[in-house]
Amino acid sequence: MRTIWWESGMVKMIDQRLLPGRLEIVAYDDYRDVARAITDMVIRGAPAIGAAGAYGMALAARQSSAQDRDGLLRDLRQAKEVLDAARPTAVNLSWATTRLLKVAERPDLTDVEAIRSALLAEAERVAEEDIAINKRMGAYGAEVIPHGARILHHCNTGSLATVDYGTALGVIRAAHEQGKQIHVWVDETRPRLQGARLTAWELMRDGIPMTLIADNAAGHLMRTGQVDVVLFGADRVAANGDVANKIGTYKLAVCAKENGIPCYAVVPTSTIDLSLPDGDHIPIEERVPEEVTMIDGVRIAPEGVRVYNPAFDITPYRYLTGIITEEGIAYPPFRESLRRLKEAAEARIWSDR
Amino acid sequence: MRTIWWESGMVKMIDQRLLPGRLEIVAYDDYRDVARAITDMVIRGAPAIGAAGAYGMALAARQSSAQDRDGLLRDLRQAKEVLDAARPTAVNLSWATTRLLKVAERPDLTDVEAIRSALLAEAERVAEEDIAINKRMGAYGAEVIPHGARILHHCNTGSLATVDYGTALGVIRAAHEQGKQIHVWVDETRPRLQGARLTAWELMRDGIPMTLIADNAAGHLMRTGQVDVVLFGADRVAANGDVANKIGTYKLAVCAKENGIPCYAVVPTSTIDLSLPDGDHIPIEERVPEEVTMIDGVRIAPEGVRVYNPAFDITPYRYLTGIITEEGIAYPPFRESLRRLKEAAEARIWSDR
Repeated sequence: MRTIWWESGMVKMIDQRLLPGRLEIVAYDDYRDVARAITDMVIRGAPAIGAAGAYGMALAARQSSAQDRDGLLRDLRQAKEVLDAARPTAVNLSWATTRLLKVAERPDLTDVEAIRSALLAEAERVAEEDIAINKRMGAYGAEVIPHGARILHHCNTGSLATVDYGTALGVIRAAHEQGKQIHVWVDETRPRLQGARLTAWELMRDGIPMTLIADNAAGHLMRTGQVDVVLFGADRVAANGDVANKIGTYKLAVCAKENGIPCYAVVPTSTIDLSLPDGDHIPIEERVPEEVTMIDGVRIAPEGVRVYNPAFDITPYRYLTGIITEEGIAYPPFRESLRRLKEAAEARIWSDR
Repeated sequence: MRTIWWESGMVKMIDQRLLPGRLEIVAYDDYRDVARAITDMVIRGAPAIGAAGAYGMALAARQSSAQDRDGLLRDLRQAKEVLDAARPTAVNLSWATTRLLKVAERPDLTDVEAIRSALLAEAERVAEEDIAINKRMGAYGAEVIPHGARILHHCNTGSLATVDYGTALGVIRAAHEQGKQIHVWVDETRPRLQGARLTAWELMRDGIPMTLIADNAAGHLMRTGQVDVVLFGADRVAANGDVANKIGTYKLAVCAKENGIPCYAVVPTSTIDLSLPDGDHIPIEERVPEEVTMIDGVRIAPEGVRVYNPAFDITPYRYLTGIITEEGIAYPPFRESLRRLKEAAEARIWSDR
């Protein structure tokens, strides 16, 4: 199941806001609509919005009426700004748009049509690489999943959060494919319920044994010995190993450590941002109050109530057992291990070209 | 605002399932309906269901067609069984029905009408005492709330969880009445949203500054230094100080300790159950999957999904700074301090008679 792709000059994606009730595909021929789709969470998940950013740049190149290289680059830089501003926390978005812009700026590409073609090819490469990267992460991650493991999983990190397969859910898929007899505790992930709506749907489709819980039940399961490993994705990893991920991750990681339960973030190396020394430098997106006060148009809190709705939190590195990537698993001290894996990933991309 | 009372031979209570949208009163003339109202959470909160149990016994005495003391006691013992089975975790229910049954068994009461009158009087005493107890808890508790405190509160522990005023919310009310300029972070408390629906409503009515958050945001607030004290109620406290409270309490208490934030349970001594050595002996109620998969008739998870829905969790005593009661604050070692406060409470009740 692919979340986002290019077809007939348009970017197509699953409208994730309608799941699990309806599976609908939306199509965009304007990069500004792609940016809006990211903001409105038609598509979400750090690697998936990375791919959306890449396709958005390819779309912007196609839309541009520029007749020369300089004009097109100007339009692309403007499109990059619009796309990057769609959501602030996940670094994959600007990682992907930067990668596309660098292609556009290649000195050997002088013709606007050549740039347009190169950008579409690069966007397709970003998407294809994401799937390959997820499969590699799955293979590395499955090694630390014991047979019969009861895995606690937060938010959605599956096919829907990526181009296909998934990060933490990719590890779960790989462990399941290896016949490890796992069981997944899926927390619902308030306020947007990505666990209840998306992860439960993906796991049920794949026949992977799972049970849905309220976020509040996770601590009880850990304390009573019913969780063997905690897995989640991340939207940005700082140089010291601090991770920004969906709100609620921090509480899970603290309780995991308190109960001696291994706890891993699963991310492509594109999520690692070595330019930030630690998690306190990662911008935390605050979203609208209605995500908390309304569910599908049903009001669940008094009219006029004041709300604070941060979309992410920071989990300091000391709560993590390891960070699983497509180049292997980073263990403490993360400052060194993350840099090594990031360099390995950058070397791999160059050698592939 | 009183949650439950006796009027014209009936038990009346606010139907809490309709709040904050509608404020409706229901009336019962059959103790079995009172038991059902407790199970269905028309009324909830440990002290409130204690009062409901007491009024239910008074109703059972009124309903009984027994002509003699023995017949009436037989009917009352049967009613006690039905009421006690309504919900398993909160000890206040059986604490109240036991107290009422003891009155009925008093050797000086031989006439069935005298027993009926004595039971109604005792039920009224349980309810009145609950209000007085909450005010005393509020006064003790307010002493540990600093000026300007930012308080994190779980579930509903207010007027609606008691007969009036509240336990943890009583402490908040008292601190507010003392002009302490407090602010309350109200977590929504999935799955039944008592925080979003009830606590937000109570605090807004009283003009106490508050902000609603998803449960998942609590850890982020604690880690970033925005919480000065954590307060919640409890449904049962074991002899060693372990507390059973609304699911999610454990994660809060662990994160509070991790961040050096004082964390208190606020309970009447009737919630302390010295007959149980520790929290692992407290029965944990599991409720229906629909509490997690449906919100006001709206489905938020795939059809047929498997759900685990424990209503409470156990917070081991080591995460608690203290346990606030109407006889003072118990500090570690709790085994001694709780016994002392429980004895003081029992002495007080006897001397009042």
